[in-house]
Amino acid sequence: MATRAGNPAVVIAAAFAGGVAAGTGLLMLPAATAAPEGSTFLDALFTATSAVCVTGLTTVDTGTHWSPFGHVVLAALMQVGGLSIMTVASLLVVLVSRRLGLRARLVAQAQSGSLDLSDVRRVLLNVVLFSLAGEALTALVLGLRLGLGYDVGAVTAVWEGLFHAVSAFNNGGFVLWPDGMAGFAGDPWMLLPVALAVIVGGLGFPVIFELVRSHRPRTWSVTTRITVVTSAALLVVGTVLYTAMEYGNPATLGPMGVADKLLAGFFSSVMPRSGGFSAVDVGSMTPESWLVTDVLMFIGGGSASTAGGIKVTTFGLLALVLWAEMRSEADVDVGPRRIPEANQRQALAVALLGLGLAVVATFVLSGVTPHPTERVVFEVLSALGTVGLTTGITTDLPDVAEILLVVLMFVGRLGPLALASALALRERPRRYRRPEERTIIG
Amino acid sequence: MATRAGNPAVVIAAAFAGGVAAGTGLLMLPAATAAPEGSTFLDALFTATSAVCVTGLTTVDTGTHWSPFGHVVLAALMQVGGLSIMTVASLLVVLVSRRLGLRARLVAQAQSGSLDLSDVRRVLLNVVLFSLAGEALTALVLGLRLGLGYDVGAVTAVWEGLFHAVSAFNNGGFVLWPDGMAGFAGDPWMLLPVALAVIVGGLGFPVIFELVRSHRPRTWSVTTRITVVTSAALLVVGTVLYTAMEYGNPATLGPMGVADKLLAGFFSSVMPRSGGFSAVDVGSMTPESWLVTDVLMFIGGGSASTAGGIKVTTFGLLALVLWAEMRSEADVDVGPRRIPEANQRQALAVALLGLGLAVVATFVLSGVTPHPTERVVFEVLSALGTVGLTTGITTDLPDVAEILLVVLMFVGRLGPLALASALALRERPRRYRRPEERTIIG
Ligand SMILES: [K+]
Ligand SMILES: [K+]
Repeated sequence: MATRAGNPAVVIAAAFAGGVAAGTGLLMLPAATAAPEGSTFLDALFTATSAVCVTGLTTVDTGTHWSPFGHVVLAALMQVGGLSIMTVASLLVVLVSRRLGLRARLVAQAQSGSLDLSDVRRVLLNVVLFSLAGEALTALVLGLRLGLGYDVGAVTAVWEGLFHAVSAFNNGGFVLWPDGMAGFAGDPWMLLPVALAVIVGGLGFPVIFELVRSHRPRTWSVTTRITVVTSAALLVVGTVLYTAMEYGNPATLGPMGVADKLLAGFFSSVMPRSGGFSAVDVGSMTPESWLVTDVLMFIGGGSASTAGGIKVTTFGLLALVLWAEMRSEADVDVGPRRIPEANQRQALAVALLGLGLAVVATFVLSGVTPHPTERVVFEVLSALGTVGLTTGITTDLPDVAEILLVVLMFVGRLGPLALASALALRERPRRYRRPEERTIIG
Repeated sequence: MATRAGNPAVVIAAAFAGGVAAGTGLLMLPAATAAPEGSTFLDALFTATSAVCVTGLTTVDTGTHWSPFGHVVLAALMQVGGLSIMTVASLLVVLVSRRLGLRARLVAQAQSGSLDLSDVRRVLLNVVLFSLAGEALTALVLGLRLGLGYDVGAVTAVWEGLFHAVSAFNNGGFVLWPDGMAGFAGDPWMLLPVALAVIVGGLGFPVIFELVRSHRPRTWSVTTRITVVTSAALLVVGTVLYTAMEYGNPATLGPMGVADKLLAGFFSSVMPRSGGFSAVDVGSMTPESWLVTDVLMFIGGGSASTAGGIKVTTFGLLALVLWAEMRSEADVDVGPRRIPEANQRQALAVALLGLGLAVVATFVLSGVTPHPTERVVFEVLSALGTVGLTTGITTDLPDVAEILLVVLMFVGRLGPLALASALALRERPRRYRRPEERTIIG
């Protein structure tokens, strides 16, 4: 895939399909379930897709349906899925940068327009080290907290810490507890490490790489600037809206103290982009909170990260285009750089296709299920954005709807990446005007 | 407004606000209502805004609440509102074309960058003649059909024919019959003239002007090409989807024969853009049909027409941008012309602002009403797109929600026009590349 960029998207899709097939096979083994009768093919397929695409939607209860072996398979699938998407996306960033003669920020400079094996090795190594370090730290805090603060044994504490660290850092959204993280509402030692792992994993490797390398915003690339500012803005707005909307809701934040409300509000604002964990019952939230969640799930997280959605870079760039247009400015500038028009159009394409796909999928899913549209839209955006939040209808769907969600998770995971890279790779260099710099899209 | 383009949008908004105020005053007169006690201020304000903005949403039953005098006031408000928006939008098209040194297609060529009184007179005259001719023809057919085919007196037939011709041609959406056009389901002599008047009124004066002038598509401007192709495509897709979705619905198309189903399906696909009449009970339609309606209402009709929405030109242009992007073409061409990038960005701005406004309005309206989101979204898009279709919640809203809808109708009527013209008027001419031609946005 790396050296001949004939059609990387097909190779990546085939690799992910292979991962799903292997996962389905493993999950169909009788040893994978708690009960001896095993799983249906559809439950295994749905769960494997959900794990490989790091979504977290489930048709069966993760904690009770699967055996410890099944849980290990799920963690492995999330780890492989998350690492693959980060590695592939990062490599595509390098490849696109070189093709267009731009600075490649992730690995050492090179003259060729293609990738060689040493590039792949270096990126993969960096991504793996970054992931393992993040997961180890998260697992440590969660494990200690579970062991010291809750009535569980040492083995359980270590395993549950590890599983949820992998799930959180890869934005996987799988939880071993039947009520999600609701049992830990009000416990910052559980909620904050999970939220932090989701945020860091969802920023994307290129951005993390730059943030670690330099703390001075003046030196940051356009991608990093847009990602950081947009992410921070969405987190603040989300926290305010969730806390306000659910403040008096007796089924969610109502019974909590103010500090716990804020903690749960923050946690809720982190998770649609696209961790998928929940500290309150999403099905009992107000329709207004669902709407906020819909928007956040559609936007998603950072490019070349474990998060889904059209990505904060795409959303942020479109907001900048709108802002420039409102001010009658011909160019869209970020700091000292101008965003080329081809890049703006790629963002538009990714957003429009995402929107169109969401509308069509809602139309179809609404036609085959009896659930109200507000819950169907939520489910569609959760699958497309590989988020994993649900108002509760995932377990109450006909087979055809489950298959549709499988397709949506797959397309949502690979679509924006494949589209953005295909568009960028086919793009011809433009005539010189001001020095340019591109943001990653998708 | 015309000679000094300092801020046309403010002048237009003030004029429309004046029309709403006058209409509210007239409708508050005791003589305007059937019952002697008159109307509340809010009902009068809501109805006057709905009429001036040619929306058609109503908090009271049009036929029974208002007196014959009230009905005359409503027809006059729709006529003034429709003529104003067509005239102003057409003048802005001329103004923008001259500013940018483009061919002005509506009136004779001129060298100055501004409009003089003769331009205004000529455009106004053309628009008025065009409207009156279309309305007279529609009124004739409707009046004859009502007089000959239904058990009504001659005076009633003439008046009802006239009222609904004005309502249809201006995309006003007001109907004197309590169940809308449902009493005429299956009668092509009633449904087709209304549908045709809505379509012609919603194409926009610049497009009609060109279509009348030349029947050869090769000579058409970009605006006309996009408007005709997009409108036709939406009508076909809408007819198919409505007929299919409602085919077996016992509350809508179910009891009808196949020909009547197709007629009602076609009628339903015409009305969201943005006539607002209905031949079936919209509240009983499937959620899938509501979703289709939502999309069509958001898109709306032609630029510089009596229709609302982001306009088919905006939608069509964005589809062309997406198509060009998918094919890796740097330029967006329509026939022999290239759409300038500034123009593409204006379309993006109009669509994004419309989408953002719809989301925020749905969030707020959902918060102040108990209705499910699918009905609230429908109502918001109906008000913003000045459509007038409703799932039935308009008469069941708290005061604050009615005031919000009044604001949405006003913003929906003037927003896209003001935005697109402001963006286009402030735009600087670009360097020469290929010969250019712009489509009207908004
Ligand atoms: K997830
Ligand atoms: K209307």
